[in-house]
Parts: sequence; C-alpha cells; structure tokens
Amino acid sequence: MIDLNSDLGEGFGVWRLGDDTALLDVVTSANVACGFHAGDPSTMRRVCREAAERGVAVGAQVSYRDLAGFGRRFIDVDPLELADEVLYQVGALDACARATGTAVTYVKPHGALYNAAVHHEAQARAVVDGVRAFGGLPVLGLPGSRLLAAAEAAGLRAVPEAFADRGYTPEGTLVPRKDPGALLTDTAAVVDRALRLAEAGELVAVDGTVLKTDAASLCLHGDTPGAVEHARAVRDSLTSAGVDLVAFAPPIRP
Amino acid sequence: MIDLNSDLGEGFGVWRLGDDTALLDVVTSANVACGFHAGDPSTMRRVCREAAERGVAVGAQVSYRDLAGFGRRFIDVDPLELADEVLYQVGALDACARATGTAVTYVKPHGALYNAAVHHEAQARAVVDGVRAFGGLPVLGLPGSRLLAAAEAAGLRAVPEAFADRGYTPEGTLVPRKDPGALLTDTAAVVDRALRLAEAGELVAVDGTVLKTDAASLCLHGDTPGAVEHARAVRDSLTSAGVDLVAFAPPIRP
Amino acid sequence: MIDLNSDLGEGFGVWRLGDDTALLDVVTSANVACGFHAGDPSTMRRVCREAAERGVAVGAQVSYRDLAGFGRRFIDVDPLELADEVLYQVGALDACARATGTAVTYVKPHGALYNAAVHHEAQARAVVDGVRAFGGLPVLGLPGSRLLAAAEAAGLRAVPEAFADRGYTPEGTLVPRKDPGALLTDTAAVVDRALRLAEAGELVAVDGTVLKTDAASLCLHGDTPGAVEHARAVRDSLTSAGVDLVAFAPPIRP
Amino acid sequence: MIDLNSDLGEGFGVWRLGDDTALLDVVTSANVACGFHAGDPSTMRRVCREAAERGVAVGAQVSYRDLAGFGRRFIDVDPLELADEVLYQVGALDACARATGTAVTYVKPHGALYNAAVHHEAQARAVVDGVRAFGGLPVLGLPGSRLLAAAEAAGLRAVPEAFADRGYTPEGTLVPRKDPGALLTDTAAVVDRALRLAEAGELVAVDGTVLKTDAASLCLHGDTPGAVEHARAVRDSLTSAGVDLVAFAPPIRP
Repeated sequence: MIDLNSDLGEGFGVWRLGDDTALLDVVTSANVACGFHAGDPSTMRRVCREAAERGVAVGAQVSYRDLAGFGRRFIDVDPLELADEVLYQVGALDACARATGTAVTYVKPHGALYNAAVHHEAQARAVVDGVRAFGGLPVLGLPGSRLLAAAEAAGLRAVPEAFADRGYTPEGTLVPRKDPGALLTDTAAVVDRALRLAEAGELVAVDGTVLKTDAASLCLHGDTPGAVEHARAVRDSLTSAGVDLVAFAPPIRP
Repeated sequence: MIDLNSDLGEGFGVWRLGDDTALLDVVTSANVACGFHAGDPSTMRRVCREAAERGVAVGAQVSYRDLAGFGRRFIDVDPLELADEVLYQVGALDACARATGTAVTYVKPHGALYNAAVHHEAQARAVVDGVRAFGGLPVLGLPGSRLLAAAEAAGLRAVPEAFADRGYTPEGTLVPRKDPGALLTDTAAVVDRALRLAEAGELVAVDGTVLKTDAASLCLHGDTPGAVEHARAVRDSLTSAGVDLVAFAPPIRP
Repeated sequence: MIDLNSDLGEGFGVWRLGDDTALLDVVTSANVACGFHAGDPSTMRRVCREAAERGVAVGAQVSYRDLAGFGRRFIDVDPLELADEVLYQVGALDACARATGTAVTYVKPHGALYNAAVHHEAQARAVVDGVRAFGGLPVLGLPGSRLLAAAEAAGLRAVPEAFADRGYTPEGTLVPRKDPGALLTDTAAVVDRALRLAEAGELVAVDGTVLKTDAASLCLHGDTPGAVEHARAVRDSLTSAGVDLVAFAPPIRP
Repeated sequence: MIDLNSDLGEGFGVWRLGDDTALLDVVTSANVACGFHAGDPSTMRRVCREAAERGVAVGAQVSYRDLAGFGRRFIDVDPLELADEVLYQVGALDACARATGTAVTYVKPHGALYNAAVHHEAQARAVVDGVRAFGGLPVLGLPGSRLLAAAEAAGLRAVPEAFADRGYTPEGTLVPRKDPGALLTDTAAVVDRALRLAEAGELVAVDGTVLKTDAASLCLHGDTPGAVEHARAVRDSLTSAGVDLVAFAPPIRP
C-alpha cells in the first residue's frame, strides 16, 4: 500500500505546464500550486474539481512568493512572514477545494522552499507554524528533513516521501541534478523503484546499495519528458503487483 | 442601531496606508484587504487579530488583481475568473481570521470593482458567485446596485450602506468626486449625516432634499485627511445619542 | 515588397508560449513582449539576440500591466500613467536590444491595449505620448485606428497592418472571433491572403468583397495550432513570387 | 568636495515612502528605484524630472524582483538572470530620465542585493555584467566590496560610499542593526560624520578609532525618523564649511 503524489496546477493565466488531467488519472494525491509560484484561482478550482471527481486527495503546494522564478530560488524570508504566507496559501486553496466538494488534507512545500526546509530550521518551523495556524494538517516532505522533525514536534503527522525518478546516494540523499545518475530516465528503472519501495520499503542507490526507507508516498514528476508515460507505467505495475494505491491523507467531503 | 465599516489593512509589504489600529477602535466592521489591491498575509493576520481582540467583525474586501493601481481601475475580467478570484481572496482572509480567533462574516468589493458591480450585471453576479462558492455570506454594497440585487436573487443577505463623508444628489446617487459637494470635510456635517441616518434613516442631499434610506451600515473612510478624527467624532456622537453600534454580521468565534 | 511581423518572447519565467526561434526564421519584424503581459528580462535579451543574428527588426510589444490576464483584458488606466508605462517598457526592451547589437525600431500595442487603441482616443494618444517621450518611433497598428491617427498627428510614422489568418468583413473590420469565418485555418487561404496583399494591396472579405488596403505589414500569429507551418508557407510563397520581404523599420546597429 | 546620495522614488502606485522632493533639494545624486523593489513608471519619471530641474544626478537603484519584501530579502537568483534584470531596470529608468532631460549616470544596488554584492562574487559580477551590457556606468557601493572589485576589474569606475547615520566598527564595517551604536540618531553626530569625511577622509568608529576612507559619496537615508532634518543639517554644515557638493557622476543632458 502506497500513495502516489505529483505537482499539479502549475500553469498561470495563459501559460500551461504539464498535463494535469492525465496525471490526475494516475496519482492518489495532488500537490496543487496555490498562486505564489504558479497557479491562478481558476486553475486551482479546476484542478480541485477534477481531483474531487477522481477521489484524489488535494494537498497545498505552498511556495515562496516568486512567479518569475517559479519558486525555485531560495528567498531569505522572515519566518513570521513565511508562516503567514503558508497560512494564506492553504486558506485560498482550501476555499477552492471546498467549492468543488473536497478539502485540503495535507501540505507540501514547493521547490526552493522544499529544499530550504530540509536544513533551514527557522523556515522549516515557519512552514509548520503556518500549517498549525490553519488548524493542523499532515506535512509531506523529505525523510530526515528539519521540516518533518518540526511537524512531528508540533504534533502534526509527518509523512516522508521518496522520488520515483531521482537517483539516491548510498547515504540516502538525492544525487545532485548536475551529477551523473541524478535522473532515472528509463521506464523500467522507474517502475522497479516504485515496486521495490511499495513491496519492501527499499530504495536502491546509484552504486547498488540497498537503503531501507519509511516513505509512505512516491513522488512522480509531471513536467519532465515522458512524465505521463512513466507515471502510468508505475501505476499499472503497482496495481498489477497487488499494491493498494491509497492517499495517505484521504480526500474528505466537506 | 447601526454598523460602522471602514477599509483596513490596505498597506503592502513596507508600505502603510491609514491608521488601522485607530480605526479598529471606532468601527464595528473591518473591510480587510485580501492581497489583490493591497494587503499581504502578515498585515491581514495582524488586522484580523486586532479586530478579534476588539470584537470587530471581519469582512473580505475583495478586489481586481491590481496592486499597481490599488484596484481603482476597471478591469474587464472574465466573470468566471472573477468569481474564482473572489473565492480565493475570501478563503485566504478567512484562514487568517480563523488563525486569530474570528472568521470572515461578510464580503464587500473594493474600489473599481465596487463601482463596476453597481451597473455591470456580469461582474456583479460573478462576485456573488464567488461568495456562494465559499458557502454564502452577507454582501455589503451600494443601495440599488446590481450587486445587492444579485446577492438577494442568490439567497444571500444584501446589506446596503451609506457614506459618512460623501455628498448625495437629490436622486440618491453619490456626487461625482470632481464636482462641488462631493466630499463632506466638516466634522459637524459628517456627524449630522451619521446621526440622521442612524436615528431617522435619512440622508440630506447637496440641495437639501431629504432622502429615505435603508442603509444598515455607515462607511467611514480611513485614508482621507482628518479621517480618524471624523470617525471618532461619529462614534462619540452616536454613542452619546444612545445609538447602538452593532456589526450587521457579528464576529463569530470558530 | 512587404513586412512580416509576429508576437514573440511571450513566455515568462519557466513558462513558454509559441516557438520563437522558428518564427524568427520567417518574419522580418519581431514584436517582443516587454514584461507587462509576458516577457522576462532574459527572454527579452535572448529574443533580441536571435533577432539581431537574423537581421530581424525588434519592435516593442507594449501592454497593460497584466501578467495574470496576458494583457487581454481592457484596463481603464489613467492615460498619463499609460504613457509612462509605455515609455518604461520601450526603454527596458531597447536596453536589451542594444546589449545584443540591435535596437527597438518600432512600437506595437498588445492584446486589449491594441483593441482599445482602435477607438479609445485617450489611450491611443497615451501610447503615442509614451513613444514620443522615448524620442519617437514608427507605430504599427490597425488601419483606421485612433492609434494610427494619433501617431500621424504627432508626426510619427503610422504603419497599418493586415492579418494573415483573420477573416475580414466587407467593411474591412475583423470578423469577431466568435463568428464563423473569424479564422483562416487553411494554409492555402492564408497563403492567398498574403500573396494578394503583397502583390495587389488587396484583401478578400468573407463574402468575397475585394478590399483595397495600404497595409505595409502582415501579422502572422505564433501561438495558434499550425502557426509555424502557416508562417513558413507564407514566407516561401512570397519569396517564390518574387516579393521582397523587408522590415518597414529596418534593424539598426547601435 | 563630496557627493550626497539618497534612495528616492520608493513608493509604488498609491503608496508613498519618504519625502522625495525635500531630499532632492539636499542631495547631489538620486538613487531612483526602478520598479523591482519599488517605483512605478510615473513615479520614476516624476523623480527624474524633479532631479533634472535641480541638476541632481540620476542613478539606477537596481534590486531583486521583490515588491512584497521591498528588495530586503536575499534571493538566490541565477547570475545570468540577475544581469539581465539589472540591464532591464537601468534601461527602463534611463528612458524615464531621457524623457525629462537627463540620463542615468551611475548604478547602485538596493537593499539585500547591495548586501549580497559585498561578499557574493557571482551576484556582484552579475550586477557589473548588467551595467556593462548597458554600455558601462560608474557603480556606487561599499568600500572593499566584491561589487566594487568586480566593477574595477571590468574597467568601470568604482565609487565607494560612506553612511552618514550608521555606526562603524573599528574594522570599518557597519555595526549590525541589532547592536548598540548601529544608528546615529543625534543630528550633531551625523553632521560631524559628514564634515570629518568631507574634510579629512576620516570616519570615527563606535569605540573612537579613527578610520581613513576614500569614500567619494555620503549616503543619507530618506525614510528614517528625522531623515529630512538630518539631511538638511548635513548639507548646510558642509556648505558653510566651504565643502563643494558635487555629483560624482554629474547629470548629462541627452
């Protein structure tokens, strides 16, 4: 039993990114952009509606305020302001979700904020503070991150995830994008990763080392070449293997 | 018995506008900017907290997306998108409000959207659609506007307001800002307006004509010279005259 | 002899729109977005560089400030501010152009501003005022528009354009997008339009009426399905017919 | 002989910050915000006009793209994009300046970018690359900064500045804002700082240590309490002492 999550709703106005509808047929959890790095109100509401129709859980993909940089640049935001920005984004998305018969059931930081929250204690806590200010929701993030530690310390459910198409070092960290093996481009490799994770709780590092993981969700990228094909292959192989695909924070009807 | 409302939280980042705290000691309803024409998440949360502490009702002052123009320019937005933008803004503010022990209890459009919603059927309906998508809240607006008609038609409570410091024509419309008598600058005149409205439901036009009105709220401007003094004088004189100052949509504790 | 123009550089940050490089191999004039409806500084500089390399003229595609709406919604901007916004955009693009060995040689309004400047006297003049404040450049627009009249009155060169893929009414106006015949989707029809315009100065309306036109430039859309194929077919057929493709405001090397 | 510079034009839309006109009567160089942290086209053009009328030099106060944070938060922008953003901002301001009879004659980074460019080699070089792409202008910055070193290495004039109202450590760095002595609030102390700098090229640190400096410009803050009074007192005392107040990069008439 495992959850499949993906970043969705990452267009803005006239611009589109990835194939939201195709991925919504694959995943169990949709990380929906909330307007700060991508995502306008109409896109948010549409993705929530399509998620609700498919029984896919809606998560708030909160970000730094950075449309020009797609939330991919670290910003040294004051933690008090960051907490308020998280609260604002979750509230806005939750309104869109409730208008379409679902609700936000978890939070996952996006891009540079996701990366910062691995080591940056103050920003990690700020994200958690924002989530608590909303009433508290499960937080999805990197195993071993300050983010998940802060979530747990705050009494929130901390949900670790693994990546379907990223290379891992023997230490269990991600291979940097500029290094060889950073990306699994072969569908068979991606499918193996998913099956082994779901069935044995294991990840195989670039050098063959077998790593144990407690990841409860598998992240599928939506905007890389072949993304949709990889995602479908993962879903099909997991289903064929008898693995239950279940959202870790199931959708609720308000 | 009457309500006093004012536009608040209209700074952005480092910039400030008006004296929020002083006006929160005067009004019974705070129209809080939601980030589209003004208002950042930290300002929104702070104003909500201060409103909650004083028992002041929090309303969503929704706007066109237009920081550069402070929401004062008509934008020919697609009504479907406008409804989603209203939903987004109300949701974001409601999250800030609930985090501080209160909740959004009404909606009032800002600036050019307020003016457009007087006559522009499609945009008036769009605002109401956005409010309904949030679950439905009272809508504050101009008596006789398409906005209030649309709100009523949708089963929402439509609350008409009058302006403490604006001149009225004998027909009951506002004197255009460029014409003489557009603004009451004399404190005594503003106080008279307030008292007569609260006690007799009457407005006196620029030519002396007495107009009957069902306005349930009186709008006090916060950013004009002498605004705070006018506001305090209005409150004091109403209180002295035994008028109850009560929010038309009282604050609720979530 | 005719000019071919197209809207380019209309991505923003991570988002892309159309195939700039392919169209730069076709057109003689590139209307480059300046950051207000689309276009970030790096995109602007890149498109200018690629235009310079190909001897394509660079024009400033100025717009309302409206990333969320892609400049497609009318905004009732104060004409004084609009003139300053035009000046700002032209200056920013000209800096990008000069850094890559070319310069802005004309101005064309985008989207809703283009449409407004057909009838809206004050906004048409504001665009021209902004161009004059920059020192004066040719203005590209709709034949018969207030924009071109204002440009001429101000002593600027007013350059009328025709559309390769839009249907015309017998009166010479564009068939509204929602009506039948609004768009020429057939490559042969688009090519005929281009040839007849270049060779005889004629446009054929939807009902077969032959219209005389003084259009000195033909606008090719870049973001419609088959856009690049249409554009290439137009260029090839014009070249084969011996028509010279020449920018109406040729690139200059600063 | 010394230059006095100040940050100006830092409002946005309806919001104002500081008293531009009062400071333009004091300074010899105006660091004008270019729209990325503050400053809209109309404000930019107005400040340029007022500077031109007074013979005050116009400098481009370039910034990270961050209206919400007023450019005060470090952003880990890609250096190639940062260079393009600098180019864009200088070009936009220069157009506003030339429209009012002056031109941009120098560049000074704002806020967090100013601070980053002290130590961050890649961002310091990026700023200089942007300035060179514009054709090259003098760069104003902190003595000993990577920014000034990069400017010099690129063949640009590097102009060091001192602060009229900031405390210095015995090592010549600024006392951090949270420490005692960070700010000179006493007018007499600010005036002494200015006189000693202009007459002897000396700064006195918080512990009394006398530091030699080659600062050619003195920065006066415009948005602190008493800023205008401090600025006028500095100008008056320098003038009385026979010090010539001259822009280091004098205004040019295009």
